[in-house]
Amino acid sequence: MKLQDYIDHLDKLAFENMYGSDFFLTWEKSDDEIAATFLVADALRHLRQSNTSTRIFDSGLAISQFRDNSTRTRFSFASACNMLGLEVQDLDEEKSQIAHGETIRETSNMISFMADVIGIRDDMYIGKGNEYMRMVADAVQEGWEDGLLEQRPSLINLQCDIDHPTQCMADMLHIIHHFGGTKNLKGKKLAMSWAYSPSYGKPLSVPQGVIGLMTRMGMDVVLAHPEGYEVMANVEDVAIRNSKASGGSFQKTSSMKEAFSGADIVYPKSWAPYAAMEERTLLYEKRDFEGIGELEKSLLAKNAVHKDWECTEDMMALTRDKSALYMHCLPADISGVSCVQGEVASSVFDRYRIPLYKQAGYKPYIIAAMIFLSKIKDPQKTLLTMRDRKLKRFFD
Amino acid sequence: MKLQDYIDHLDKLAFENMYGSDFFLTWEKSDDEIAATFLVADALRHLRQSNTSTRIFDSGLAISQFRDNSTRTRFSFASACNMLGLEVQDLDEEKSQIAHGETIRETSNMISFMADVIGIRDDMYIGKGNEYMRMVADAVQEGWEDGLLEQRPSLINLQCDIDHPTQCMADMLHIIHHFGGTKNLKGKKLAMSWAYSPSYGKPLSVPQGVIGLMTRMGMDVVLAHPEGYEVMANVEDVAIRNSKASGGSFQKTSSMKEAFSGADIVYPKSWAPYAAMEERTLLYEKRDFEGIGELEKSLLAKNAVHKDWECTEDMMALTRDKSALYMHCLPADISGVSCVQGEVASSVFDRYRIPLYKQAGYKPYIIAAMIFLSKIKDPQKTLLTMRDRKLKRFFD
Amino acid sequence: MKLQDYIDHLDKLAFENMYGSDFFLTWEKSDDEIAATFLVADALRHLRQSNTSTRIFDSGLAISQFRDNSTRTRFSFASACNMLGLEVQDLDEEKSQIAHGETIRETSNMISFMADVIGIRDDMYIGKGNEYMRMVADAVQEGWEDGLLEQRPSLINLQCDIDHPTQCMADMLHIIHHFGGTKNLKGKKLAMSWAYSPSYGKPLSVPQGVIGLMTRMGMDVVLAHPEGYEVMANVEDVAIRNSKASGGSFQKTSSMKEAFSGADIVYPKSWAPYAAMEERTLLYEKRDFEGIGELEKSLLAKNAVHKDWECTEDMMALTRDKSALYMHCLPADISGVSCVQGEVASSVFDRYRIPLYKQAGYKPYIIAAMIFLSKIKDPQKTLLTMRDRKLKRFFD
Repeated sequence: MKLQDYIDHLDKLAFENMYGSDFFLTWEKSDDEIAATFLVADALRHLRQSNTSTRIFDSGLAISQFRDNSTRTRFSFASACNMLGLEVQDLDEEKSQIAHGETIRETSNMISFMADVIGIRDDMYIGKGNEYMRMVADAVQEGWEDGLLEQRPSLINLQCDIDHPTQCMADMLHIIHHFGGTKNLKGKKLAMSWAYSPSYGKPLSVPQGVIGLMTRMGMDVVLAHPEGYEVMANVEDVAIRNSKASGGSFQKTSSMKEAFSGADIVYPKSWAPYAAMEERTLLYEKRDFEGIGELEKSLLAKNAVHKDWECTEDMMALTRDKSALYMHCLPADISGVSCVQGEVASSVFDRYRIPLYKQAGYKPYIIAAMIFLSKIKDPQKTLLTMRDRKLKRFFD
Repeated sequence: MKLQDYIDHLDKLAFENMYGSDFFLTWEKSDDEIAATFLVADALRHLRQSNTSTRIFDSGLAISQFRDNSTRTRFSFASACNMLGLEVQDLDEEKSQIAHGETIRETSNMISFMADVIGIRDDMYIGKGNEYMRMVADAVQEGWEDGLLEQRPSLINLQCDIDHPTQCMADMLHIIHHFGGTKNLKGKKLAMSWAYSPSYGKPLSVPQGVIGLMTRMGMDVVLAHPEGYEVMANVEDVAIRNSKASGGSFQKTSSMKEAFSGADIVYPKSWAPYAAMEERTLLYEKRDFEGIGELEKSLLAKNAVHKDWECTEDMMALTRDKSALYMHCLPADISGVSCVQGEVASSVFDRYRIPLYKQAGYKPYIIAAMIFLSKIKDPQKTLLTMRDRKLKRFFD
Repeated sequence: MKLQDYIDHLDKLAFENMYGSDFFLTWEKSDDEIAATFLVADALRHLRQSNTSTRIFDSGLAISQFRDNSTRTRFSFASACNMLGLEVQDLDEEKSQIAHGETIRETSNMISFMADVIGIRDDMYIGKGNEYMRMVADAVQEGWEDGLLEQRPSLINLQCDIDHPTQCMADMLHIIHHFGGTKNLKGKKLAMSWAYSPSYGKPLSVPQGVIGLMTRMGMDVVLAHPEGYEVMANVEDVAIRNSKASGGSFQKTSSMKEAFSGADIVYPKSWAPYAAMEERTLLYEKRDFEGIGELEKSLLAKNAVHKDWECTEDMMALTRDKSALYMHCLPADISGVSCVQGEVASSVFDRYRIPLYKQAGYKPYIIAAMIFLSKIKDPQKTLLTMRDRKLKRFFD
């Protein structure tokens, strides 16, 4: 494709509301807005691959705040900001004065005088992460309206308790390219399945993000998990609404086999039960560390019952033509590699290593597209100007 | 104002000695140099707000060293360096080899081969922070004279035991704009007052910096604190000299009410007694941690007697037209918000939130102006060239 | 020299294999490649000193991974990347998800989607550091061949268990300039000598790197150490081969005095015995911390016997004209300064402070040259274009 092709597609979409907006949850964005994000991600990749500078900032800061460990998303955010010309400045709460009891409103403004973007990961506690991001966004909105900030930094959700939009959008773009376009996804079966892990307490944001987004493409999405591993009910409602609107379906099962049978895409991954995570959040609030210890013990015991929820070769053999697209947000718990028994058999994982890494490779561009669409008033024009200004990324 | 207006003002001032100089203490700078810093800060803001690139560096490093926690100053320094085109590289003593007993002279040169700026916060120990900065500055001066460094990095004091110039200059610029220019400050009453905090041991650099700078503007500056909370005597001497030269006054009182009565500006803030901080420094040198524990206990007890030193609504009612400009370097200890009882009533703080955040917003530009004036030989010419080269900060 | 002089020299050398290559060990590079690295380092310095921008990247990331503390190399790497236009993003294993048991292959690709360079320091365990770097390099090579990475990041060895090429190349360039060119090095005597330090366990990479590189210049290289402080045998083999090929010599002695006698260059420095470091690596693998404690004790006792291995004035008096060039990679253990008794007398160190700092100052340019030669297909042409595009580093 040429850059003009992406432009022509964009011309048919209505996404002007993305200008100046934040990116919290995919289901707050219209179908056109989601489509525009994919197109801009691809267009930016197209430009960079042809050694064209994609900088839209001569100077400016991007603030990152990671309240949980991160490798992929940290480097994806850094890459996205760097390719647009922003320098990442990390807000490390341990080295800041936030401990003094400073309010979120205050800190948010204090770090934003020259910030164009704020990216936040806050996925540890149910009911907290997304709320925190919105408080930050409200604070800088107010600061901007009050004339305190020279620009309104755009907030990008780098994973919260509800959704993981940069991950799931990258996942979706991978699927789109794998199957040769959105038009080919109608009727494809996707199995978002729980899988066993020797750890417990992994975030719910990926399974929730996946059913919240992938149900929009006319696919038959199946959510599979053992009893007691429910995700948030209101995200399931989103999935139901989406599937109806897109002409696909959303179903639940407590059988991994059923989910895998005839599936075109499988996404087996461990997560913690929603109710347990909610309980843990309350225990943390009470600083009841004994209670947390007991909860962990019971969760691990509960987990251990479901060691058969593993993406083995036998499971893969149930999928369409025995060759469904295997997906994972990484890192995966690979049996015999990173743990004794885990989410996936090493032979399966190894066979899909290249597509898995490719899947991850979309994230920098997805983040860059989110920022681009939030910052640029006329994206088509700016993309063309980028092409025509003849500025190389790498001068050799 | 147009950019030319700032240029015209600058043309009337003598500040050529700032070229190649460091910024340690405001009282080492002439009135013209202080005025030039404010003008350049405003001019840089003017350029950035009109989406003009303020980069003077194509590449180059700015080194930061924070020996105490920081949010505002850290992000202000990062913003200032970024808008001038420098990348911040933090010297984290824990991750470096400084622990090996390396000398300050050596480390200073080792990090400076490509450094254009060094910003240091070192405010913990009396008689140490400012001294440390001067040792670093001397070391890089020597390294430059010996031909080891290709450029002489400029040192910016990001808070020491004596002064907090980037804070107090931002405070002053806020006052200047609030009252419509330096010319309107003559005879205005400013109360720099101690206030109660449940913590103890806050640096003296802000009250000292305030009386050392604000006495230069013809204002009536009152320093108020309970007995035993004296600041450094030689900074008081600076304040006395300044007030005489500027036609203002400098007075001391041990009554918060007296200080607030008829004040146009109030700056209530906790700090530790100078003598106690000196004692603590000696105890740290001896590694007498038991002694430090006892000192802390006695300081907290001493503090607790002065809980009435709070900026309440009643206190504010004593000020001119009951509406003095309330100032704080942030974060403040807000009663009922960040502590049970603290420096300021929450209703007062809330009413002044916007001016307080605006006050903080001057700091990036003050730091950028300090760097700019140290690096640029003909600032007026460079500012005009910046305007005329038509390089946008944000390309949309 | 003019830029054209560097170009003329480069024109006579064959170094096209450096394009797209990594830099692991100096002895994997041909004499022409080593010479080209020095020329490009000098040419880049020439350009920067004449205020010419040396950026070849408009945007892009350089990944650093420091598995050991670092000041000099950290800032040198940051400087080198910055002057070429790359932003450093540090891979901090504590803040990443590597602990989850993620494979090196996976992490290497995950951080490299937009990485042009990866610099790694991994010098702690014998048989591990260099191996780790090669695993990372293999992983990104595979990722690039599989179409996962848009560019193949070049790997730069920032110190491993075998060699410290950025240090030793900087050392060598210092020697070349000190003696007025490579042509004057023939027959010069260089003493790479063990020296006493109150600590133990310093890496072997510097003495090994020195004998592996400096034997290529026709010099008479002497390696001196007490019995039991042997370096890796295969690096000694490299030194023997090199010295034969270059017409110099490589000898060993257990007498510091013998090594210093008539030496033109002395490099006295502590290191740990190879065999002991190998033992320590095995103990760490077994997590035998008691064993490590005992090993440390015995090493310190063994060390203490050799306190006379100090670079004193008496020792220096044995050297040619009593004024050999004293070298050290820094920080040195200076007797009476950073320790009671150490590697060097303070009067000796002080007299050589300026050349020592100069020595360190070559490292940023050496690293930049390594990156440049790996990335740029026609270095001479690019250097000339840099000169002629009239882009200033610092716009004043």
